[in-house]
Amino acid sequence: MPIPARLAKLLIRTGVVGLHPGVRKLMGDGLAFLKYYSSRVLEAPNEDLKRTQEAMDVGSAIDLCLGAPCLIPELRDHLHSLIEESHGYPPVAGLLDLRRAFADKLRRENAMSVDPEKELIVSNGVGQGLGLFLDAFIDPGESVAMFDPCYFMYRLAAQHRRQKLRLIPTTLEDGRTRFDERAFAKALKGSRALLVNSPNNPTGGVFTGGDLERIAYWCKRRDVLIFSDEVYEHFNYGEHAPTIAALPDAQRRTISAFSFSKTYGMAAYRIGMIVGDQWLVRPMLVSMLASAPFVPTVMQQLARRALTIPTAALERRREEFRRRRDRATSILQRWGRTIDQPGGAFYCWIPIHNLSMAAHDLCVELKKRTGVAAMPGESLASNGKSYIRLSFAEAPGVWEEGFQRVARALSEWNARPSSKAA
Amino acid sequence: MPIPARLAKLLIRTGVVGLHPGVRKLMGDGLAFLKYYSSRVLEAPNEDLKRTQEAMDVGSAIDLCLGAPCLIPELRDHLHSLIEESHGYPPVAGLLDLRRAFADKLRRENAMSVDPEKELIVSNGVGQGLGLFLDAFIDPGESVAMFDPCYFMYRLAAQHRRQKLRLIPTTLEDGRTRFDERAFAKALKGSRALLVNSPNNPTGGVFTGGDLERIAYWCKRRDVLIFSDEVYEHFNYGEHAPTIAALPDAQRRTISAFSFSKTYGMAAYRIGMIVGDQWLVRPMLVSMLASAPFVPTVMQQLARRALTIPTAALERRREEFRRRRDRATSILQRWGRTIDQPGGAFYCWIPIHNLSMAAHDLCVELKKRTGVAAMPGESLASNGKSYIRLSFAEAPGVWEEGFQRVARALSEWNARPSSKAA
Repeated sequence: MPIPARLAKLLIRTGVVGLHPGVRKLMGDGLAFLKYYSSRVLEAPNEDLKRTQEAMDVGSAIDLCLGAPCLIPELRDHLHSLIEESHGYPPVAGLLDLRRAFADKLRRENAMSVDPEKELIVSNGVGQGLGLFLDAFIDPGESVAMFDPCYFMYRLAAQHRRQKLRLIPTTLEDGRTRFDERAFAKALKGSRALLVNSPNNPTGGVFTGGDLERIAYWCKRRDVLIFSDEVYEHFNYGEHAPTIAALPDAQRRTISAFSFSKTYGMAAYRIGMIVGDQWLVRPMLVSMLASAPFVPTVMQQLARRALTIPTAALERRREEFRRRRDRATSILQRWGRTIDQPGGAFYCWIPIHNLSMAAHDLCVELKKRTGVAAMPGESLASNGKSYIRLSFAEAPGVWEEGFQRVARALSEWNARPSSKAA
Repeated sequence: MPIPARLAKLLIRTGVVGLHPGVRKLMGDGLAFLKYYSSRVLEAPNEDLKRTQEAMDVGSAIDLCLGAPCLIPELRDHLHSLIEESHGYPPVAGLLDLRRAFADKLRRENAMSVDPEKELIVSNGVGQGLGLFLDAFIDPGESVAMFDPCYFMYRLAAQHRRQKLRLIPTTLEDGRTRFDERAFAKALKGSRALLVNSPNNPTGGVFTGGDLERIAYWCKRRDVLIFSDEVYEHFNYGEHAPTIAALPDAQRRTISAFSFSKTYGMAAYRIGMIVGDQWLVRPMLVSMLASAPFVPTVMQQLARRALTIPTAALERRREEFRRRRDRATSILQRWGRTIDQPGGAFYCWIPIHNLSMAAHDLCVELKKRTGVAAMPGESLASNGKSYIRLSFAEAPGVWEEGFQRVARALSEWNARPSSKAA
């Protein structure tokens, strides 16, 4: 019998809940602290968060779990010469110099015309951008629409804010993300915002220009804001598609979040960009000031250097990752596991239906037996317990070795379907 | 006639509010976006936030506004040798190496025994620590107690989360922060948490060991959590006082937030530490994952180096700032403005009652006339419109020049009390 949240809170705050022997056993020493937790914490998807954190704890295993490419070689020389004594707090919205250079990139690459002083914030990665977006535009109890599967942070960040999820089922076909337009339009009804990510994490699916136009059309018709996670924009192996924020229907209702983590291999350096109409960016800046302001000056300087790297280098990088994608799927195929070719990003989304084992348990076993960390699908999709995600973004040689080990282990389990990780 | 928040939200969401010509004029082009804003944004202290941001925009003026000391010289040599290619995402809670070294510091300097794996998180400064604390432990509508005056972020961060403030009035006497114990105990009644900051920003007031014990006693008795902002711990010019988290009554109900920004002059590098019982730290880590996870690896490595600097260097730095404090107050005195000597931190909290001008306007005038940026008191205290804050943390020579100019300008205004910035 589910207890209403308010009653549960009362039972917790008064300590009554501690009379239950099961709760006492579960919380142990922590029971005394339960009464201090906010509703945000009490109603958060704590089990999911804990499991996700565990999965992210790669330790000494080969890391096919997280997707963090190596630093782009063109930046290496800059590293040592870069660091100078920085003094004082950087501007809350970020170094103007960097924002101007990024506005140039947006004009050149994304057909977006943006005022760097009012429509652009430097953030601590896309993660912070998403959190600020959800804080600024969605109340607890209101709904956020997102495609399923999607990056685990989307659900966790929304649920942690006590917001409701509207999931739009998708499939991967020839590298494209496919969805039913009627189901999509229905999910938008009553939603405050839609989260878009193309190329998609974890499937690698890409939206075509036509898809994006339909999405923008419905968002306008339903008056829904868009958060577009552009983190894989330089890892699209098919036809070029426009940036959704550049489409007329989407223009003034979209916050785009760009990242240096994947394109330049700067995950460890934490630079993201929040871009949108000034009336959408402004409340996010206010939220930033009241939550986690200031991005390290040095990291912003490094990002400024990154923007001087010629486009040809990013082209070469994309070609390298396209070859990796081909190689990754052929390794899987050789071991009897054929998957749909991802059209972008650097993940393989691998079904494990036949293994009679949930993805989380499988990943624990895989790590133990093969020394490779994979990402279990539970936090990435509704049907995620039948999928694992492998990243091919690790260093050359390393990722291939990891893929070989995992593909081989899966094929051995395959041969013994009833032997539950015996 | 104040409109209830729910009704206001309805009027905004339906667009009815736009029929009011005043609102149309105020919002202009932004009116169409108002309906997208969350209650968090609509009910935030937006005017305060905007003014604070404006005040922080120092431009080319001498910066006596923000308090960011220069980098400690012992770290300069490390800067160039430091940066190496970092790969992948750092652990959500921070580099274990750094957390271990900080646990050693806490044992040595603060008489705190902390498990670095479970009771310590590396954060993007104390600002992020405060936000995570408020998210994890306080619901919208619940109360947070804080001493008045206090750092502007305390009020703004709480109000932005739709939490209520309980202000405890304080005065500065011989460098000590004084408060009425009965009023204090009353403010705690029904509060979920208390924010403590000693030495205090902006007054420079310090709590004695006895004060801290009384505070801890009442927090325990009222079952209130404590957030202790230890950012000025190395800038205490009087008797050594214990860290509140080390007191028996406070131990298991306190989150301490430490910072590298002031001690080592690392404001631009953004490293803070969140420390407390694992049952308090854990939900904050979860909130971090769902809002702005990951602190740049390189910045954490720099912080690790900072912890190798011998204590004697921090002693010398404190002595230097004590001399600055003496010099700062004597400059003010020479121009006829005697203030209570601050016992710690690096601010002078200067009354301007006699100037018949609000602090915000005065600071705008000061910047224009003297080229010095000062912090207006409005966002720092209930009676803040009669105070400005001057920082003496700027580079040697620079801050003195700034103090001279401001003190002189104030004295000239003094002489013409009725000439409203004529």
